[in-house]
Amino acid sequence: MTFQNREARIDFDRRSRLGMIEAVWGEHKTSDQIVEILHSFKAQKEGALVTRVDQQKADLVISRIGFTGVEYHARSRCLTFGSPFKANPSFGEVIVLSGGTSDLPVAAEAELALRWHGIKTELLLDVGVAYLHRLLSQLERLKLAKVLIACAGMEGSLPTVLTGLVPQPVIGVPTSVGYGVSFGGNSALSGMLASCSPGLLVVNIDNGYGAAMAALRIIQLG
Amino acid sequence: MTFQNREARIDFDRRSRLGMIEAVWGEHKTSDQIVEILHSFKAQKEGALVTRVDQQKADLVISRIGFTGVEYHARSRCLTFGSPFKANPSFGEVIVLSGGTSDLPVAAEAELALRWHGIKTELLLDVGVAYLHRLLSQLERLKLAKVLIACAGMEGSLPTVLTGLVPQPVIGVPTSVGYGVSFGGNSALSGMLASCSPGLLVVNIDNGYGAAMAALRIIQLG
Amino acid sequence: MTFQNREARIDFDRRSRLGMIEAVWGEHKTSDQIVEILHSFKAQKEGALVTRVDQQKADLVISRIGFTGVEYHARSRCLTFGSPFKANPSFGEVIVLSGGTSDLPVAAEAELALRWHGIKTELLLDVGVAYLHRLLSQLERLKLAKVLIACAGMEGSLPTVLTGLVPQPVIGVPTSVGYGVSFGGNSALSGMLASCSPGLLVVNIDNGYGAAMAALRIIQLG
Amino acid sequence: MTFQNREARIDFDRRSRLGMIEAVWGEHKTSDQIVEILHSFKAQKEGALVTRVDQQKADLVISRIGFTGVEYHARSRCLTFGSPFKANPSFGEVIVLSGGTSDLPVAAEAELALRWHGIKTELLLDVGVAYLHRLLSQLERLKLAKVLIACAGMEGSLPTVLTGLVPQPVIGVPTSVGYGVSFGGNSALSGMLASCSPGLLVVNIDNGYGAAMAALRIIQLG
Amino acid sequence: MTFQNREARIDFDRRSRLGMIEAVWGEHKTSDQIVEILHSFKAQKEGALVTRVDQQKADLVISRIGFTGVEYHARSRCLTFGSPFKANPSFGEVIVLSGGTSDLPVAAEAELALRWHGIKTELLLDVGVAYLHRLLSQLERLKLAKVLIACAGMEGSLPTVLTGLVPQPVIGVPTSVGYGVSFGGNSALSGMLASCSPGLLVVNIDNGYGAAMAALRIIQLG
Amino acid sequence: MTFQNREARIDFDRRSRLGMIEAVWGEHKTSDQIVEILHSFKAQKEGALVTRVDQQKADLVISRIGFTGVEYHARSRCLTFGSPFKANPSFGEVIVLSGGTSDLPVAAEAELALRWHGIKTELLLDVGVAYLHRLLSQLERLKLAKVLIACAGMEGSLPTVLTGLVPQPVIGVPTSVGYGVSFGGNSALSGMLASCSPGLLVVNIDNGYGAAMAALRIIQLG
Amino acid sequence: MTFQNREARIDFDRRSRLGMIEAVWGEHKTSDQIVEILHSFKAQKEGALVTRVDQQKADLVISRIGFTGVEYHARSRCLTFGSPFKANPSFGEVIVLSGGTSDLPVAAEAELALRWHGIKTELLLDVGVAYLHRLLSQLERLKLAKVLIACAGMEGSLPTVLTGLVPQPVIGVPTSVGYGVSFGGNSALSGMLASCSPGLLVVNIDNGYGAAMAALRIIQLG
Amino acid sequence: MTFQNREARIDFDRRSRLGMIEAVWGEHKTSDQIVEILHSFKAQKEGALVTRVDQQKADLVISRIGFTGVEYHARSRCLTFGSPFKANPSFGEVIVLSGGTSDLPVAAEAELALRWHGIKTELLLDVGVAYLHRLLSQLERLKLAKVLIACAGMEGSLPTVLTGLVPQPVIGVPTSVGYGVSFGGNSALSGMLASCSPGLLVVNIDNGYGAAMAALRIIQLG
Repeated sequence: MTFQNREARIDFDRRSRLGMIEAVWGEHKTSDQIVEILHSFKAQKEGALVTRVDQQKADLVISRIGFTGVEYHARSRCLTFGSPFKANPSFGEVIVLSGGTSDLPVAAEAELALRWHGIKTELLLDVGVAYLHRLLSQLERLKLAKVLIACAGMEGSLPTVLTGLVPQPVIGVPTSVGYGVSFGGNSALSGMLASCSPGLLVVNIDNGYGAAMAALRIIQLG
Repeated sequence: MTFQNREARIDFDRRSRLGMIEAVWGEHKTSDQIVEILHSFKAQKEGALVTRVDQQKADLVISRIGFTGVEYHARSRCLTFGSPFKANPSFGEVIVLSGGTSDLPVAAEAELALRWHGIKTELLLDVGVAYLHRLLSQLERLKLAKVLIACAGMEGSLPTVLTGLVPQPVIGVPTSVGYGVSFGGNSALSGMLASCSPGLLVVNIDNGYGAAMAALRIIQLG
Repeated sequence: MTFQNREARIDFDRRSRLGMIEAVWGEHKTSDQIVEILHSFKAQKEGALVTRVDQQKADLVISRIGFTGVEYHARSRCLTFGSPFKANPSFGEVIVLSGGTSDLPVAAEAELALRWHGIKTELLLDVGVAYLHRLLSQLERLKLAKVLIACAGMEGSLPTVLTGLVPQPVIGVPTSVGYGVSFGGNSALSGMLASCSPGLLVVNIDNGYGAAMAALRIIQLG
Repeated sequence: MTFQNREARIDFDRRSRLGMIEAVWGEHKTSDQIVEILHSFKAQKEGALVTRVDQQKADLVISRIGFTGVEYHARSRCLTFGSPFKANPSFGEVIVLSGGTSDLPVAAEAELALRWHGIKTELLLDVGVAYLHRLLSQLERLKLAKVLIACAGMEGSLPTVLTGLVPQPVIGVPTSVGYGVSFGGNSALSGMLASCSPGLLVVNIDNGYGAAMAALRIIQLG
Repeated sequence: MTFQNREARIDFDRRSRLGMIEAVWGEHKTSDQIVEILHSFKAQKEGALVTRVDQQKADLVISRIGFTGVEYHARSRCLTFGSPFKANPSFGEVIVLSGGTSDLPVAAEAELALRWHGIKTELLLDVGVAYLHRLLSQLERLKLAKVLIACAGMEGSLPTVLTGLVPQPVIGVPTSVGYGVSFGGNSALSGMLASCSPGLLVVNIDNGYGAAMAALRIIQLG
Repeated sequence: MTFQNREARIDFDRRSRLGMIEAVWGEHKTSDQIVEILHSFKAQKEGALVTRVDQQKADLVISRIGFTGVEYHARSRCLTFGSPFKANPSFGEVIVLSGGTSDLPVAAEAELALRWHGIKTELLLDVGVAYLHRLLSQLERLKLAKVLIACAGMEGSLPTVLTGLVPQPVIGVPTSVGYGVSFGGNSALSGMLASCSPGLLVVNIDNGYGAAMAALRIIQLG
Repeated sequence: MTFQNREARIDFDRRSRLGMIEAVWGEHKTSDQIVEILHSFKAQKEGALVTRVDQQKADLVISRIGFTGVEYHARSRCLTFGSPFKANPSFGEVIVLSGGTSDLPVAAEAELALRWHGIKTELLLDVGVAYLHRLLSQLERLKLAKVLIACAGMEGSLPTVLTGLVPQPVIGVPTSVGYGVSFGGNSALSGMLASCSPGLLVVNIDNGYGAAMAALRIIQLG
Repeated sequence: MTFQNREARIDFDRRSRLGMIEAVWGEHKTSDQIVEILHSFKAQKEGALVTRVDQQKADLVISRIGFTGVEYHARSRCLTFGSPFKANPSFGEVIVLSGGTSDLPVAAEAELALRWHGIKTELLLDVGVAYLHRLLSQLERLKLAKVLIACAGMEGSLPTVLTGLVPQPVIGVPTSVGYGVSFGGNSALSGMLASCSPGLLVVNIDNGYGAAMAALRIIQLG
């Protein structure tokens, strides 16, 4: 069923069609548009996930929304409404790794989106390749996860090294962390695509949510 | 164990570490280098897969190799030595789709690499989005596969449309088919990365082998 | 006749030469420059359309202009002076589609520019390809229009799909909606240019006004 | 109805759906693939247009095809089979302009594709802006056409100047003629997209066929 | 002689070596650095030209400088100290053209830099190629100048058209006016470099000062 | 007067309008097209200069042309017909410098084009900045020329250094000599445009002919 | 030993492994994150160097840190805690050169990072190639240093010229100083990489710290 | 002393000025030009190193040179004349690593250039990061070298990992090995520049010779 609010149509069929709820991409939307969309979700008795919302916009939404249950997650820059799906332990676990502290918002967005869909998820920070032993010391732990999401900016070699070490699916998320040639994340992106490690998968720069939905597609197979 | 021939060291441990054999990337290698490498594989009693070998180089290798069992697959531009793994039906099936006839070499490389690892694989050609009804008419068939690999050049929108229609993992392979702005495959690549469909995964341009190894990682999970 | 104000010469002959009024591109102009230009239009008894004006600049212009009839259209970020042309029903209708809510300013600019020239125009939002059935359900409606303008950001595949479905002229407007590889609209732009659908026409990123003027040129033919 | 030959499915419904025949893009296809496709067209009693075929590939196709009626057009690098549509004078005329002799193959491809669909078409060469009086002296003649297709390489300013002079739809085709910064046609492409003339429409670099199909869509409206 | 202030060494020999004073590029400098540099010029009894200074930084400099004779030119965003050279009529005149009002700061920077070196200079605005007759009506006037500097953003075709019409040296200055593909001025730049008109000379985007110094080098020859 | 041969119109008015003959750009033309064009020049009793002709194409033209007076200049890859203009000593001299032996074809094209228009021209090779003393030892000689044309590939810093040393007009010609980041000449081009030396003028990559025509425009002023 | 604070793990082994302390890259970190990290260093009795911190963020850190010894260096935009290593005279000296005043923050970052590791370092400003004699007059002085770090924006030719003059290791640091084609530092970067001078080494744009650490690696060899 | 042959001036002073002989870059030179240059070296009693010479050009040079002592090195694509410098053991050793067999020509060029200057050099192949244990098993060996040169194509992460493991100077050489986004070596290049490992130094793509000369500058310090 397609509910049509004035300026946005929400894809409420997405859950049955794809097994995922429709996330709202908040970056280019005004707080008024987000308020209106959240009212649509509430009217449909659906929970909601709004990504890329800064603190100021989130405050405006919460002060104007007129009902409770909307929560802001500063670390991942997301708004949620309602409750996440209950974790399904048979799905197994996803580990989200990040090369450095600065990649945290992207890694946290992936983690929240997965947990919101009921997937057990752990965040493992600061395992960049400049200090390889940190990563190698976690190897046995990593082999227990079902899917690995590796966020990295600058030269983005974390997923390349990781894919050479473990047999599971690895999803690389280039981040827009860096300056000079790495400004905007393009060095990390092309490094991951060009990777010599066989079978590394890639999503758009900073697209933690997309990596999470890809992991969800994989993990639902089993 | 690492066998060291004169100019290349083969990663014969890859099978136990990652569940895959080491493929040899033939594009920048001379026929003499490939002959030498195939001898290493034979000495180790390992089968081999050499990608990106044109007809002329393949002929040279086969005429000089001095033993039997090396076969050239013109459609996918690959050389193989030995026998593929026996198909493991419990792994389920992968469907490789292509937008147009010109994407065939890339799609066929993915298909051969999967079959070589014992994965049941079907090739579905010419289902580009300019004639949408072709694709829609295959929808129920597609939902039976475990992983979909969608190869597309030009604007590369096939995987975007597909990811909006089915819940499984979809791996987009941009191809270097096109001219003008799409020359070299960059339009297709950035279109797939920028896709509005949630959870689309991407590999390097023309990287049929990489998409196959990623599908292998996913399909081995179950 | 060319009226010369101090720092800008207005092309008042454009109506007779090209059948369109000269729009003023407001983005790089100060409010003082816009005020001065609007006085020139008023002196010539001409209506005016000023594009790319943000709310703050618009408020300054209206507070300083010293005469009535200047109106700000927030959704399309345009200022107008005077009255639009009376609709000419024999020209037929243009439908402006957009892939997502975030494309609205561009789509609305196209719609306003067309209505200002007397063209009947409808806006159809949120028909992106990630939920294909929305678009397919509108197909018969779309076939009644004379020209379709399809605005899309991210991977920009809406106009490609549309051009494969209907026989009319389709004008693709890439929008600067997106992040990572789609930042600035270049993925959408090159996707539309590289499109495998025959006869898709493209204008500059975010150029809703240009798409409208192209549609006007087409629709005036009949 | 969709006829499926071994490696390519032809979209024989395109004529009823879009008013155009499916052209075959010959650039990445082998002569054997083209021969097989032409047999499909003949079996369906359909005429065919194959673009981007060099002389050598064309000779191979004609020598192997085994039936008559296949003709090579060296100037436009196209193969045709069967007869073009009879011209429909009520559709009006298209003029294809080119900035220099080197743009000829692109302009001729557009001209042939239009004539093949029954559109009266004239080719006007060497009217580049470096000698503006050539272009201005043709102005009255140009105003009689229904659509103008302007092919230009290097800086590609011909369509910009033209769109400022005439009220009809103008389709700019950037060509890959040039060297240095204009190598590959990107300067001409971005110049046309960035044009200050209102309503200029653009297709991919060297896409004479695409410009022709867009003109066909426009001209069929009337 | 080289005067060394704390953080910048001024090239006071430039006048004797190159016939020009050293301009100070103000964009990346703080107001304190500019104040210090102007003190150096005053100590050397030299006049000064500081480019790329916004209103706010200029106000700070003037309020802190502690001596008179520093003047801000808002239209060209320049600070000057001292008096310009007396015009040398035997040098002839330079005309600075601009395609649109938005190019004014660049054109005005060129004009001020030339007048500051004693060159007679005229500014001719809004002669873009979208309304060609404006330009053609000025042709005889233009032929009287010694050098033409043509500033243009967007597709930047003004200098191309101009160079095809007149025999004098033409210096094209691409401007960063535009959006989408022309954002930052690269379309205009590559259009001018790729120009089919013989002998067009180009400087960096927005480099009005550089065009002026090049014109000065030419005009000092005679 | 415009002479119209079948596929190219020659701009025989260019000499009176711009003081230069129309050069024919041979790169994208067939030998047959060049033969036809040279016949047009001969019929008009005009001399001709055809640039970018390789040895093989030149041989074909000369063997088929059917009249005498066509000469090939291998070093500059040009064909000429007829005699150059008589040198006009009052015009002064142009010196063409090149950074390395590999830039020779570009430098020689500039030199031939200038001599063909009667300008005294000297070629000074291998004065790149990696051995600065070579350049400095020529400084007094360089100051005697009226215009300097500096060809350089790789990082292209020769014209930057030169413009800091001498007061005359300097035209930088980036060449496509190099590999890696300098492949195609873009490093040299952007280095020259970004130059910190005031008043450096730039033409397209490898455009020796364009630099010569710009020098001609300058030198005719005096 | 790896100390793990809540969101960042510090590589305290780096000193023994690489001979350098771990610098903290402050650009993408909040003041709270920096405060927390400095507490970790203090707990480990380690000195710290935090780069890319603007004045406002530095003030916040210092006001919240709660212990003494944190100092802000405005010229190099760095925070330090503790004392630098004592200079080791046997290591010899590094000279950091800069092309213009605007390169100062980058040059100062390199200088501070070297001094912090006990390396004697001198800063030599405004020796750009537009006034070559300034550089040449310092030549004997430069030959006394062990390593030269040359910072330059715009066309970035200072390190090219320098590498042709002296036999020591030269590290080029492109800076993001400039506009138009040099915006962001890419012209300077590719100029240095493409340099015709043999043996020039390059680091990322604005990476003064990286150049310092490379010099440290070299200077520790002796 | 500067010897001037007809079209190239050799920098025979380079040995005393920089401690290195002038290498001749053979890529854009004809065999005739190389023969002439080698005669100059012989006349000066200098040995010579000519890089980037393919087999065919080398054969032509050797067959035409007319004296003995010219030798072709197929693996590094270099011609040499005369004898290399005698190794100076006090300089210590350089190890040249390569990520894959395809990087061999670049690594071998670096090795030959170093040995030619008397530096002890070892080549270590196929230590790419996809099989990390190969690299880690060589760690103690690597710590004995004075300088490490790491050649890598594709994503180019070998030097990043290496620089995090050892304290010596590491010079990264991106190679043009790869396809899709890594075509031409740009992914490897920007990955090395963006590297999170402190102090990694970079040269142009495929520039094995440049890396060798940089290592020479470093190693001569000691």
